[in-house]
Amino acid sequence: MADVKNILFIMCDQLRADYLACNGHPSIKTPNIDKLAAKGVNFKNTYVQAPVCGSSRMSFYTGRYMFSHGATYNGVPLNIGQPTLGDHMRELGVSTGLIGKTHMSADRGNMERLGIDPLSKSGVLASQCGFEPWERDDGLHPDELTSPNLAYNEYLRAQGYEGDNPWHTAANSGVDENGELQSGWFLRNAHLAAAVDKEHSETAYMTNRAMEKIDELGETPWCLHLSYIKPHWPYIAPAPYHDMYSADDVIAANRSAEEKQDPHPVVSAFMNHEESINFSDEEKRRHVIPAYMGLITEIDDHIGRLIAFLEERDLLSSTMIVFTSDHGDYLGDHWLGEKELFHEESVRIPLIVYDPSSEADNQRGKNCDDLIEAIDLVPTFIDALGGKEKYHLLEGRSLLPHLRSETVEEWRDVAVSEVDYAWRGARLELGLTPDKTRAYMLRTKEWKYISYDGFAPQLYNLEKDPQELHDLVPGRKHDFEVLEFENLLHKWIRSRKTRFTTDHATIEAKTDNAKQRGIYFGVW
Amino acid sequence: MADVKNILFIMCDQLRADYLACNGHPSIKTPNIDKLAAKGVNFKNTYVQAPVCGSSRMSFYTGRYMFSHGATYNGVPLNIGQPTLGDHMRELGVSTGLIGKTHMSADRGNMERLGIDPLSKSGVLASQCGFEPWERDDGLHPDELTSPNLAYNEYLRAQGYEGDNPWHTAANSGVDENGELQSGWFLRNAHLAAAVDKEHSETAYMTNRAMEKIDELGETPWCLHLSYIKPHWPYIAPAPYHDMYSADDVIAANRSAEEKQDPHPVVSAFMNHEESINFSDEEKRRHVIPAYMGLITEIDDHIGRLIAFLEERDLLSSTMIVFTSDHGDYLGDHWLGEKELFHEESVRIPLIVYDPSSEADNQRGKNCDDLIEAIDLVPTFIDALGGKEKYHLLEGRSLLPHLRSETVEEWRDVAVSEVDYAWRGARLELGLTPDKTRAYMLRTKEWKYISYDGFAPQLYNLEKDPQELHDLVPGRKHDFEVLEFENLLHKWIRSRKTRFTTDHATIEAKTDNAKQRGIYFGVW
Repeated sequence: MADVKNILFIMCDQLRADYLACNGHPSIKTPNIDKLAAKGVNFKNTYVQAPVCGSSRMSFYTGRYMFSHGATYNGVPLNIGQPTLGDHMRELGVSTGLIGKTHMSADRGNMERLGIDPLSKSGVLASQCGFEPWERDDGLHPDELTSPNLAYNEYLRAQGYEGDNPWHTAANSGVDENGELQSGWFLRNAHLAAAVDKEHSETAYMTNRAMEKIDELGETPWCLHLSYIKPHWPYIAPAPYHDMYSADDVIAANRSAEEKQDPHPVVSAFMNHEESINFSDEEKRRHVIPAYMGLITEIDDHIGRLIAFLEERDLLSSTMIVFTSDHGDYLGDHWLGEKELFHEESVRIPLIVYDPSSEADNQRGKNCDDLIEAIDLVPTFIDALGGKEKYHLLEGRSLLPHLRSETVEEWRDVAVSEVDYAWRGARLELGLTPDKTRAYMLRTKEWKYISYDGFAPQLYNLEKDPQELHDLVPGRKHDFEVLEFENLLHKWIRSRKTRFTTDHATIEAKTDNAKQRGIYFGVW
Repeated sequence: MADVKNILFIMCDQLRADYLACNGHPSIKTPNIDKLAAKGVNFKNTYVQAPVCGSSRMSFYTGRYMFSHGATYNGVPLNIGQPTLGDHMRELGVSTGLIGKTHMSADRGNMERLGIDPLSKSGVLASQCGFEPWERDDGLHPDELTSPNLAYNEYLRAQGYEGDNPWHTAANSGVDENGELQSGWFLRNAHLAAAVDKEHSETAYMTNRAMEKIDELGETPWCLHLSYIKPHWPYIAPAPYHDMYSADDVIAANRSAEEKQDPHPVVSAFMNHEESINFSDEEKRRHVIPAYMGLITEIDDHIGRLIAFLEERDLLSSTMIVFTSDHGDYLGDHWLGEKELFHEESVRIPLIVYDPSSEADNQRGKNCDDLIEAIDLVPTFIDALGGKEKYHLLEGRSLLPHLRSETVEEWRDVAVSEVDYAWRGARLELGLTPDKTRAYMLRTKEWKYISYDGFAPQLYNLEKDPQELHDLVPGRKHDFEVLEFENLLHKWIRSRKTRFTTDHATIEAKTDNAKQRGIYFGVW
């Protein structure tokens, strides 16, 4: 009998691994997340399989690398033939739904071809990445494109916020010193208090919705994906979070003059993006990051509320809690903004897992330095609930051994991440067609190797250069390592699980068995 | 306006490229196929993407490599998310159906997950590889597993053949000199005349069904996949085909003593299969191959009937005709039976294309030596019917330029084929798990390179050693070529089209366009 009955799978958006107090940030306050880490295991070396929202999440939800699920960017529909977390959970009798963001695009073309009605029960699940859409809200609502039925807008209006799109005009705008409303879409307004009471912010609202849903679910086993949009931009926080931090709390940018002198062509093209230029300006950086930090502390407060709520309902003894993020944020490090490349600031995420089982008691409060991948969560959840391993389909590995034992044998020695920048200005600057824009990261304890389609690779020695300031490829002193890593990448791609409609037990049962089925070939 | 209105896509099963008179066989008679070649283009270097029925066909039907479609062996369901020929044809208003074999397994797991009723219109198409099942018959019907409703058995019974499974007892068995019925499942009976009148054989029946269907379709544009089971085993032919050829007509086996002395471990394990041992026996080989040849001439006769029928209906001016096969047959060459490895006998197929367009008149009767792949057919059909190229999804290339012009610029310089032998006795002999059993062939004009998971590669110089008797890898004199080919394989796998739910035009339209959509990031 499994000790874990429910799973609370909390994801932030664009939260860097190092912007938590328990991960070493010197000035940020995250006491509730720290407390969760003290009750669970803090996985310090956790990597997303793609440092961009949609593709990263499709890996989280399918348990498969980007190469294998094919949704290589935001807006690329997840192929209808890729099963997701919800499918695996429902097989185990667990009600699985979403509150917040998935960034999943439905595969309408294949749904139409296959006659799947988007409004049918299975059509809704197929359109929502396998989650019951308890409240889908992808968190970006430009005025022109926002649904008139957006639940959060309806909620805000019910609280007295006016207008067509209070998501923008209240929750993501602020009033300036002249009493003018200024949009949070622009970095220059990051210092303003959002024109929303903190009780009504997106983070507060989604937390409330999660608590309501948990009450509603009662005794039904559940897997709830609470997926916050923040601290993703628009970078603007409600009071008191908006001025909880000052420019003095901002840690120094991790960048060197050398990096700008002769950058790798792809990195150079990313440096020319508007977000990179703006975050390279130290003044702007110090203007924006306090808001980013405020949004994180706001989330922390609500994590505190949520855990208190679970405790009150006596659910802490039966609920696995995961706290993570879909990718990081450069915030000006390496002269870059946003994410999508493979520096630690972009590709490494926080991951804290609280396992309620008594078998996990010896591990509580431990840090784990093993290389963990986002795709490990689906196998972990299946394992925690007593389900069957799906080795032919899932490319991650269960973390249960890490959660429950001192030593774990035979763990991976390389973490992999991928990117496809076909949609970015960088592609245009480099003059590439949309099929020449993939890159792969292989990260071991010692090295980080990056292989680009059509360009030289990059190599960093993370033991000697943990800040990733010195690309070793141009110096030609590490050609051997480069060759070894490219071979490793080749081996890795060859091993992708593209044959996932048949499990190994079926193959074993059918191996060399034609005669048993009455089929004789080559028999005299 | 396209000149091509209909497509007749004829496939044989297990027909080697060199067992046609027009491809140089010294004793076989295939006058009607030869005549078709004289009216069309004979593609002499055509390769299957997997030398095994199911996987090869899934490449033919999806226009995608095995790595990309994932159905790596017979019985592996084709993932529901992979569109097929029928889908592309229907978009162009062309009624597309099957008479004969596809060897496709439906993806029942995903169909159930997605709530697709197998009996609904789209459920039937999804279960039948996108073809309307005008008559699905995969051609192997062991007594124990045969459907009581098999149409061909009902037909045979209506013609007076008795029993539960006249497919076996009439069409695929013969009466021996003692008047005893002997099963065609066994090679020793290959010399007997099948206990069926040639008018009622599988080949005859499927041809009749095709003609009936063409009449029924009338003015509707159609794409008919006429997919014969023969000359695939059971190797037994009706009179007069059963003794049309004698042992003297059998060409010498292509094998050397050297090949048996120290074979590659994977090849060695295949040599130990029962079919290889039996076909290595020259007596047995000479006993069986005349039946194989008879079955081919039988098909040729029906091709003749079919073309006469099209001529009579005045359809030759509007119908593209393709004649091909899903893979070859070792027949004892290289001390092997069956197929599944990458010698030319297994992986090279006949491909003749007749294009009715007057633009093709200058090319009639030409041979083409370019490297052609089975995946080229789907793009060819789309192109011939005036449809839009689907570069993001289809991995083959249209053959229309070859069919209509003297010179074709920028053609591929390598053909690729893949195998997954997890289901074979060879895996057990080698002690492998089912995920370590893939191999890849890269074939250029000069070389054939084979890369195995976990074993040394193989390399043949096809210009100096067209019979593929001397593997150059053990001699170590071609390490440079081996390295180059392995790099090429790496590049090839990296380029697989796993991102196929979004086309390039969509990507171009969305590149760097956040602001147009009201989304501002990194903007001051």
